[in-house]
Amino acid sequence: MSASTIDLAVIPGDGIGPEVTAEALKVLEKAAAADGIVLQQTHYKLGAQHWLETGETLPDETLADLRTRDAILFGAVGAAPGDTRIPSGIIEREMLLKLRFSLDHFVNLRPSRLYPGVASPLANPGDIDFIVVREGTEGPYVGNGGTLRAGTPHEVATEVSLNTAHGVERVVRDAFRRASDRPRKKLTLVHKHNVLVFAGHLWKRTVEAVAQEFPEVTHDYLHIDAATIFMVTDPARFDVIVTDNLFGDIITDLAAAVSGGIGLAASGNINMERTAPSMFEPVHGSAPDIAGQQKADPTAAILSAALLLDHLGYGPAARKIEAAVVADIAGRGTAVRSTSAIGDAIAAAL
Amino acid sequence: MSASTIDLAVIPGDGIGPEVTAEALKVLEKAAAADGIVLQQTHYKLGAQHWLETGETLPDETLADLRTRDAILFGAVGAAPGDTRIPSGIIEREMLLKLRFSLDHFVNLRPSRLYPGVASPLANPGDIDFIVVREGTEGPYVGNGGTLRAGTPHEVATEVSLNTAHGVERVVRDAFRRASDRPRKKLTLVHKHNVLVFAGHLWKRTVEAVAQEFPEVTHDYLHIDAATIFMVTDPARFDVIVTDNLFGDIITDLAAAVSGGIGLAASGNINMERTAPSMFEPVHGSAPDIAGQQKADPTAAILSAALLLDHLGYGPAARKIEAAVVADIAGRGTAVRSTSAIGDAIAAAL
Ligand SMILES: CC(C)[C@H](C(=O)O)[C@@H](O)C(=O)O
Ligand SMILES: CC(C)[C@H](C(=O)O)[C@@H](O)C(=O)O
Repeated sequence: MSASTIDLAVIPGDGIGPEVTAEALKVLEKAAAADGIVLQQTHYKLGAQHWLETGETLPDETLADLRTRDAILFGAVGAAPGDTRIPSGIIEREMLLKLRFSLDHFVNLRPSRLYPGVASPLANPGDIDFIVVREGTEGPYVGNGGTLRAGTPHEVATEVSLNTAHGVERVVRDAFRRASDRPRKKLTLVHKHNVLVFAGHLWKRTVEAVAQEFPEVTHDYLHIDAATIFMVTDPARFDVIVTDNLFGDIITDLAAAVSGGIGLAASGNINMERTAPSMFEPVHGSAPDIAGQQKADPTAAILSAALLLDHLGYGPAARKIEAAVVADIAGRGTAVRSTSAIGDAIAAAL
Repeated sequence: MSASTIDLAVIPGDGIGPEVTAEALKVLEKAAAADGIVLQQTHYKLGAQHWLETGETLPDETLADLRTRDAILFGAVGAAPGDTRIPSGIIEREMLLKLRFSLDHFVNLRPSRLYPGVASPLANPGDIDFIVVREGTEGPYVGNGGTLRAGTPHEVATEVSLNTAHGVERVVRDAFRRASDRPRKKLTLVHKHNVLVFAGHLWKRTVEAVAQEFPEVTHDYLHIDAATIFMVTDPARFDVIVTDNLFGDIITDLAAAVSGGIGLAASGNINMERTAPSMFEPVHGSAPDIAGQQKADPTAAILSAALLLDHLGYGPAARKIEAAVVADIAGRGTAVRSTSAIGDAIAAAL
């Protein structure tokens, strides 16, 4: 395949996933074409609906096939909360998390920016512009643990957080590298090392060690509880946050909320060693309550497509999408537009 | 001892701890005297400073002595962040957490109210008035875990969250009882059961089971990440939150921030089975940077004293302290008052 072809896997998923993905593809196609990039698409049926029809979450052959692609554009998955036919969390764990773990997406990159024209729930948000580098392949997400004497008064349930020097070091180094590329060059480690001593000290020691390689980057530390306070009192203090899988899950939803909502929050599940394709998805879920009604905001999906282009080395095309989004957002009034109308407007602004 | 004597243990601690505790005692003494309650005090020297002088965190004899008291009023502990003489987290774990665990403080009660006259960082905070019932004796706080091959590229660090039917059921039942006593009668379980399956399902099943005993209470569920979003977009939706030790730590700091800051956030570490004394403390820490300068707001410590009276069955005296605090807060302008001036004003308003 030529250097300017993207062999793209598309997983639209459930609920609003297909709607927002359609708009992301609309914008991605136009931006790619303008820069002479050929976009080849393979669509995969996966998610809660697919599970209901087939009983499959993520078959080995599908995973093997996905591995051959350059990148994955992901919509959203998940059943309606009331749907008792689907065992709770099965799609999240056996499909979404399985992809992140199998494809070694150790950098879960989640930028937060308060774009001009966007309302924050904060009275004085200040200039919010930071990225969270969330570890994506270990920590409390490993699925290690168990239940003893389930359903009895003597039940014991455990969850084991697994943290390795290999896993922590590679994501910390990635975060320092990104901090070094930003104007403020500031990194904040978020953890809870005064309570989670073993994991916490591994993270702290690793940050201290890797910091030696990046003398131009300043770094500090916040406990996760204190970090949530700063997120509402002074979010502008953050530049690059590096943190574990669970704290990253929590802090990025909060970050998205203070920056105008998860309708705008993009993310990349990135394998920086490039041994498998990376995956780009909006932070929001499948929102079954508004699915199929053209009510969802596709902006997060569109910004995720920009992160995808950036990761594949098409920086100029990524910048154009971002600029088109920023222009569209700045002009958004209170008028309600359909999902496709927003996609059309951003595509037109390219 | 007569029914109207309180045999009180006082642990002022470090930093601003002694200052805010002095004001809490000032108000507590006056409120007690007015209601014919005799207050006997035993002060304990514990904390970072005490560790530096003696190498003691919490000796067995001190713990045994504390057990004989009716309740504990706690200030704050912790060394200055830069003080490398004190091993990081040792005071928190071997003193504060050891007290919570040894005295079986399974209900970590943290009310959040946006008092009239208090500024929230939220543009539209709405009517914030909820309590968090945080589990206090298990979960990821048990200190279970370890490190293998520390300091090598092959290091593995684990943290084990331990959850028992016994531990979860008693705190969930307490939360339902509190919800049942409140006008809105609404309970929200906060967890992450789609990822932390084993612990999460124990919590979910327990809530479903205990709900049968409280048909008048409605309940819902939020993942911790979604809960942080609601905390900044619609905190008025919450009435009673029940959650585990770590999620409770995170959500209560965020709750304090949106309700006007941790200068106002009180807490009780409560043993509802009354097999050992409960302990009441402001949510804030020892703030070494402003210690000894009469700059700290003692309101959180004073409200913690009200929670103490309430727990010991002196509801009317507790209500009077709360009313005096509410009156004082409503009249607070932008004028800066010293720690003792605030204590004096609240005592005078009793
Ligand atoms: C759906 C869920 C498993 C997922 C996570 O916890 O990582 C989501 O909350 C996210 O942040 O992408
Ligand atoms: C000091 C620390 C151990 C403590 C905790 O994590 O519980 C504090 O943050 C709190 O919330 O009381």
